[in-house]
Amino acid sequence: KPSTAQSADSDTFSLSANRKVSVSNFKGNKYVNIREYYEADGELKPGKKGISLTIAQFQKLLSQQSFLETKLQAR
Amino acid sequence: KPSTAQSADSDTFSLSANRKVSVSNFKGNKYVNIREYYEADGELKPGKKGISLTIAQFQKLLSQQSFLETKLQAR
Repeated sequence: KPSTAQSADSDTFSLSANRKVSVSNFKGNKYVNIREYYEADGELKPGKKGISLTIAQFQKLLSQQSFLETKLQAR
Repeated sequence: KPSTAQSADSDTFSLSANRKVSVSNFKGNKYVNIREYYEADGELKPGKKGISLTIAQFQKLLSQQSFLETKLQAR
């Protein structure tokens, strides 16, 4: 499981109050992590809810943007 | 938790052999679900690993595409 620890806050952005997207490198492989966080001991910690996408998976997600937007409008 | 059941396969696309992106509507709210699946009884079923993004969260993710690509290259 790729680490969700950040070496710098600047590699992270928030999707909502408790959801963040981060970039990580685990054993030479890069991941885009989309994850829910929770507060414990005054710190935000990565929770169980989330997924770590490989670069190929992330690029595939981006490539399907217009497909998804069409499907969302139809819902 | 939003349903990950699909009314039609065409509302889904695969990120990898066992990861899919789907669109759903749960109680009038639309979600983009990024989730791992597993096989049971000859069927692919949604697993625990994944996250369901609201439209606002999904749009925010898309809006940060170039930020993420820059960060990925730096890793």
